Amino acid sequence: MTKKLIAIALGGNMILQKGQPKTYEQQMENLRKATDVIINVIKKGYGVILTHGNGPQVGNILVQQKSGVAEGIPGQPLSICGAMSQGQIGFMIQTALEERLYEHEIHDKRVVAIITRAVVNHKDSAFKEPTKPIGPFYSEEEAIKLHQETKDTYINDAGRGFRKVVPSPIPLEILEGPTIRRCVEEGDIVIAVGGGGIPVSLENGTFVDVDAVIDKDRATEVLATQIDADILMLLTDVSNAYLNYGEENQQKIEKIEISKLKEMFDEGHFAKGSMRPKVESAIQFIEYGGSLSIITSPENAIAALDDKSGTRVVKKI
Amino acid sequence: MTKKLIAIALGGNMILQKGQPKTYEQQMENLRKATDVIINVIKKGYGVILTHGNGPQVGNILVQQKSGVAEGIPGQPLSICGAMSQGQIGFMIQTALEERLYEHEIHDKRVVAIITRAVVNHKDSAFKEPTKPIGPFYSEEEAIKLHQETKDTYINDAGRGFRKVVPSPIPLEILEGPTIRRCVEEGDIVIAVGGGGIPVSLENGTFVDVDAVIDKDRATEVLATQIDADILMLLTDVSNAYLNYGEENQQKIEKIEISKLKEMFDEGHFAKGSMRPKVESAIQFIEYGGSLSIITSPENAIAALDDKSGTRVVKKI
Repeated sequence: MTKKLIAIALGGNMILQKGQPKTYEQQMENLRKATDVIINVIKKGYGVILTHGNGPQVGNILVQQKSGVAEGIPGQPLSICGAMSQGQIGFMIQTALEERLYEHEIHDKRVVAIITRAVVNHKDSAFKEPTKPIGPFYSEEEAIKLHQETKDTYINDAGRGFRKVVPSPIPLEILEGPTIRRCVEEGDIVIAVGGGGIPVSLENGTFVDVDAVIDKDRATEVLATQIDADILMLLTDVSNAYLNYGEENQQKIEKIEISKLKEMFDEGHFAKGSMRPKVESAIQFIEYGGSLSIITSPENAIAALDDKSGTRVVKKI
Repeated sequence: MTKKLIAIALGGNMILQKGQPKTYEQQMENLRKATDVIINVIKKGYGVILTHGNGPQVGNILVQQKSGVAEGIPGQPLSICGAMSQGQIGFMIQTALEERLYEHEIHDKRVVAIITRAVVNHKDSAFKEPTKPIGPFYSEEEAIKLHQETKDTYINDAGRGFRKVVPSPIPLEILEGPTIRRCVEEGDIVIAVGGGGIPVSLENGTFVDVDAVIDKDRATEVLATQIDADILMLLTDVSNAYLNYGEENQQKIEKIEISKLKEMFDEGHFAKGSMRPKVESAIQFIEYGGSLSIITSPENAIAALDDKSGTRVVKKI
């Protein structure tokens, strides 16, 4: 093993942004842009594992599940919708990325997409309090009926209607980790952990699907740690994490020691649901032995690898 | 590489039969039964690649695509629906098979599902005459309108309504072949080539999706040949291929030399769309250097491996 391994997480909104047409063509156009950074990372000689969100895609699949019922097709569980989105997005990224590899005359690489499961503990406290809204909107009457039929929890989502909420438990292990590691070692560019992985928990000795959504940054960190990756890179729409983000005294975090970032984290900085899981994952990766965690935008990714941009978390400066 | 490799193709109807409820639970129940034979093949020491059809599942996904349009979700192309079905079925088989592995106290195996693309030639004559009906039914008016908008071909499917037809070109190569081979050599049980693979063709140096459906037995043969598998096993609902099937003088084909089977094939035996592609694949696998092709039912699969049942095609008896 001579080259360094990097696990890069791509946000689901880089594949489909709010307000854009939800077509295949639009998503492919977005992906062609998003894969630019990956090509440059490959050119720097890294072995690349690419993970991705699936929020917009699984949202659309869930709506289709609902509307198919009238045509006699029962909706499939959330786990299956997640698996479908891994197939969909995996194939789209393969296509976009191989197109770029060809343009850049990189002919010795193949992109493979692996269906990925993430293990959670069914005793995770998240299961007591589902918080993550998913899928289509329902009227209050429909939501009450569905709750009675399925015991699923529904909430009024910001006044826009009622939506199902599911727990977001902590991922513990990526079941396909050993295969992913082997593939990237052999030179494949690997797409994995789509949407944070399909959540499964161990029951009677075997892994069964659970109704939950896993944060993709947390799951990417678990994979990166598990396969001894050198770098964890979490891509988002800002160049850095900030202290007091959006306020007058906001302060860009550049290169930082883990102990200092941990202090800030414990003080309650970083917005829940967006920057907080990224910072938490970045810290954890270093705690578990990784050498560098990066939080940055695609535009700044290469500069960040050159130690010139982005939030870079290390053990000691 | 000490152990023998076997590529086994599972029919889509083994995952969901006509008339059954199209639920996750029903499909998992079917898969638990279908995986029985796989466990026994593993116990015999073979390295296993499992491929599968996706007819019922992609059919359901296509109906959902249509019904989601009214909710503002544009339908995704057939290639994406195929990729979705690979995610869906791959995860279901993983779950069912690992459950059976645990029951049988086989603890050193992991099941991985790989998104798989099959290369076709866009000059394949099949593209001139699309024949394979897919997806939902439309009225004649709807079909005419869709044809004008998309140039897709629609036919009246046995008087039940109008359906889109797509070509069924010959698969030439499985892009993920090298990765699949590596995974199975390292001990993984690999699920691949779902629904015959996502059809792609080479355009301007890179692989783009095409609107087509590939026969899963043909694609399984291509993979088996490509990765130097020893045995190709095509599972279906009958124990053997027959001469004059269904007629008074029907004759079971047991162990047979490739030259003899080829004669029968050239004489026009074997029903198009069902047994014909299986026999053709069985012949081709031996012609290209494989040692044994088997056509049989899951119930007879182990006896067939023991040379006691099923249609077994070899170079020389």
